[in-house]
Formats: sequence, C-alpha cells, structure tokens
Amino acid sequence: MKSQKFKVRFNYMEVCLKPLSTTGKFSKVVQRKCFLPKDHSGKCSEFHFLSHLHTVKSSVSNKIRRDSTHTTGAAWKSSDAGPNRIFRWAMLLSDEELLEYGLDMSALKPGVQLKLREKAADYDSCIEVAIKLTYLTYNMAGAPTPPDEIKNYLEAHHGSFDLGSTKCEICQEPLNFALFNEAKVGRAAIETCHLNPRIHNAQNVGFGHRECNIAQGNKTLEEFYAWIDGILKRASL
Amino acid sequence: MKSQKFKVRFNYMEVCLKPLSTTGKFSKVVQRKCFLPKDHSGKCSEFHFLSHLHTVKSSVSNKIRRDSTHTTGAAWKSSDAGPNRIFRWAMLLSDEELLEYGLDMSALKPGVQLKLREKAADYDSCIEVAIKLTYLTYNMAGAPTPPDEIKNYLEAHHGSFDLGSTKCEICQEPLNFALFNEAKVGRAAIETCHLNPRIHNAQNVGFGHRECNIAQGNKTLEEFYAWIDGILKRASL
Ligand SMILES: [Zn+2]
Ligand SMILES: [Zn+2]
Ligand SMILES: [Zn+2]
Ligand SMILES: [Zn+2]
Repeated sequence: MKSQKFKVRFNYMEVCLKPLSTTGKFSKVVQRKCFLPKDHSGKCSEFHFLSHLHTVKSSVSNKIRRDSTHTTGAAWKSSDAGPNRIFRWAMLLSDEELLEYGLDMSALKPGVQLKLREKAADYDSCIEVAIKLTYLTYNMAGAPTPPDEIKNYLEAHHGSFDLGSTKCEICQEPLNFALFNEAKVGRAAIETCHLNPRIHNAQNVGFGHRECNIAQGNKTLEEFYAWIDGILKRASL
Repeated sequence: MKSQKFKVRFNYMEVCLKPLSTTGKFSKVVQRKCFLPKDHSGKCSEFHFLSHLHTVKSSVSNKIRRDSTHTTGAAWKSSDAGPNRIFRWAMLLSDEELLEYGLDMSALKPGVQLKLREKAADYDSCIEVAIKLTYLTYNMAGAPTPPDEIKNYLEAHHGSFDLGSTKCEICQEPLNFALFNEAKVGRAAIETCHLNPRIHNAQNVGFGHRECNIAQGNKTLEEFYAWIDGILKRASL
C-alpha cells in the first residue's frame, strides 16, 4: 500500500524561531515565530517560503496558508455547519477557554463539535504542513520555478526537487499545477488531504483530487483502500 | 460487474390511470394519475402503495416520495446551490416556460443549471421509481411487513418478496431498514442512488449507503468501479 509514500523526510533544518508580534483573536494562544533559516539576514518572517508563490499565484499560496493553519468547515456559521474556519490550534483549547474567545462549543451539535476537535493541531505542525504543501506544489508538473533561496529551504526539509513527482495521495495519479485553476461550482479541483483525517502534520498531509478526497471521506487512506477493495470483490461476484 | 442487478423486473401491471385533480405550481405541467390496480374499489390514489409505510415510518415514505419526484439540490436557494427541490418533470420545461413559473434558470451558474437539467424525469418514471423504492424498502432486513394488498401490488411490479435481499447498489452490502434512523449531522445513512446519475427511472434507481453514494459522485456505477480498480492497482504498485 502506498501509505509508505508519506515517509518522514522532514529534516528539521535549524530555523530562526524568533517570536513575531501578532494581533488578532487567538494571538495569546500561541506565539507565532519566524521560520527563516537560523542567522538569516533581513526581517523575520513566518511564511517567507510562500512569498514567491504569492507573487505568481496568490490563490494557491493563500490556500496553503489557510488549509495548513485553519480548520476546514463551512463558509457560513450554524450549529449544523459549525463556525467559520478557525485556527487549528484553537481547537486544542478547552470548551471553557473557547467560550472566553466567543466560541460557544456547547451551542454546536455533538457531531460538529467532534469534527472540529478532530481538526486540532499545534502551531508548529501547521507550519510544517505549510512547508510540505509548498514543496509539493513546486514539484507538480507545470509549477512555477521558485528562486534558489526558497528551493534550497524546501529541499533542506523534504529532499531534492523532482518536478512532476507530486501525485494525488489517494489515487496516485500525477497532479498538474494547472488543476489549481479548475473549479466545479466554486470548488478547487485540488484539495489538501490527509492520510488519516484526524492527524494534521507534515507526514500525514498532501494534495489530492477533490473527487478522491470526497470519496475517501473520513476514512484513513488504508481504510479507504480496504473498503474499495471489498466493494470490487463483492461487485464482481 | 453488478450493474446487471438493475435488471428490468418492471412488469407493468394494469393500473387505473384516472386523472387526479391536483393543485400547486406545476400542476398544469403534468396530469397526475391514480396508480391503484385497474378496476380497484374505493377512491383513486397516486401513492396508495406508500400508505402502510406512511403509518409505520412516515420519514421513510416521505423520503421515497421526495426522492422519486423531486430534484435533489440544496435546502436553501442560491445561484451556487440552485433552487429548493423541485419536481423532476419541471426540468423538462424550457428556460422560457420555467420563467413563467418563477424560476429564472439564467440566474443560476451554468454548472448548477446543468446539474438540475440532469435530474429531469417524466412523471411516469418518477412514480415507477417510487414503486421500486417502496419494494426495495420492504425487502430490507428489519423492514415492517406490508398488508397483503400492497405486497401483491409491489410483487406484481418487481417479483416475489425476498426479505433481506435489498443491498446497497454500490458496495453490495445488505441494507438494514434500521439504517433509515441513523443520521450523521442531519443526513440519513441511506440515500437514493443511481446506476447512472443522469437517468431517473426504475431500472436505474436503488438505495445505497450515503458514504457509497458520495464516493460514486457523478460517475456511473460502471465508471466508479473502473475508477477504484485503477486506484487500487496504482496504490499497490
Ligand atoms: Zn527570524
Ligand atoms: Zn486523485
Ligand atoms: Zn383509480
Ligand atoms: Zn454501500
């Protein structure tokens, strides 16, 4: 099974980690940090590795930032759909702490609460995910070429670039950068997907076709493969 | 492949077909009819075959009526989601005719228009679907037992009852009547599904698990099986 593909290539290069001054609702919950290489010149920056992608295709860099740091969840608020997308690390707080931030978990249906809690991830894991997704993006066929500084940074984390090597983690077909442009009824054709939907870290996250991600649902990739294997066996009886 | 399971068992018993007087938005579009056996006694009725199910489990009989005669579509109106569920036969009308009924197709996104048009079905096909779904429901393990009159009617259309024979059309696992009660975040665990999502008639419609129906998406069942077969082959390389 291809889950071995999610092997840990995360080499933890030494990064600056100086605290950044941030504002906003959950700024007291985590101390956001600089992820430039240690002893870098110039200003500290959290998402410097997205800076080039942001200039050539901001929709993709915004997607990577959003998916890596925020819960999925509806674009509208309701007890059915849950709140708007919020920081994944906020989901590590207790119900009582969240109430202080104006989010009343008890007002949400139990199933929605559970789904939100499953999206919890610490800050460092979220940044690692963003770095991984940026690496995977640049290794899609048709992707733009980053400046050497960013290429070197990403390679230090995930190994040498291999253009065209990024595949849908679910169906194992190559993903083309142009797919980011395709949308059906407002949804992107490429989604961030999880080997295990309840774990959000670099080893467990990649890109997949929207239709593949939907088919996988809340199963792990292993469970999904076993499930469709059973379907095919029964269907061909 | 199991699509052979959708074989035509529809024997077209002779039915009354006397016109029913109906009101409502699209009542001029189709003449609704009596589907009791020809020369029946008592009042004419369109959905008499659902009358018993309605007394023991109205949520299921309502679902069968709704799914057989109405488009799916969102529970809210928008150019993204489309209009509320409307009669499938209304989708046989032209854009101009629909405008007279207050539905401005041109205000909907092209993708939404297309999706709605794909749900079109004539009135007779919709009733045939309702009869088939009622038959399948009574043949689920754990289903209530209908009165002989209804059993005989359904058997005349689809053959002898075989309790426990109703399977998910997609994964081929038996469906238990109790699954109608299970819901995740407000959605039933059993959905009406289509061998080909663009054809709504008795031969092409059955029940399936919600997760299976979601995984199938807008593929035909044959396409879905071929797709997951390809996934498994690539994943086990
Ligand atoms: Zn720094
Ligand atoms: Zn895929
Ligand atoms: Zn009649
Ligand atoms: Zn199923």
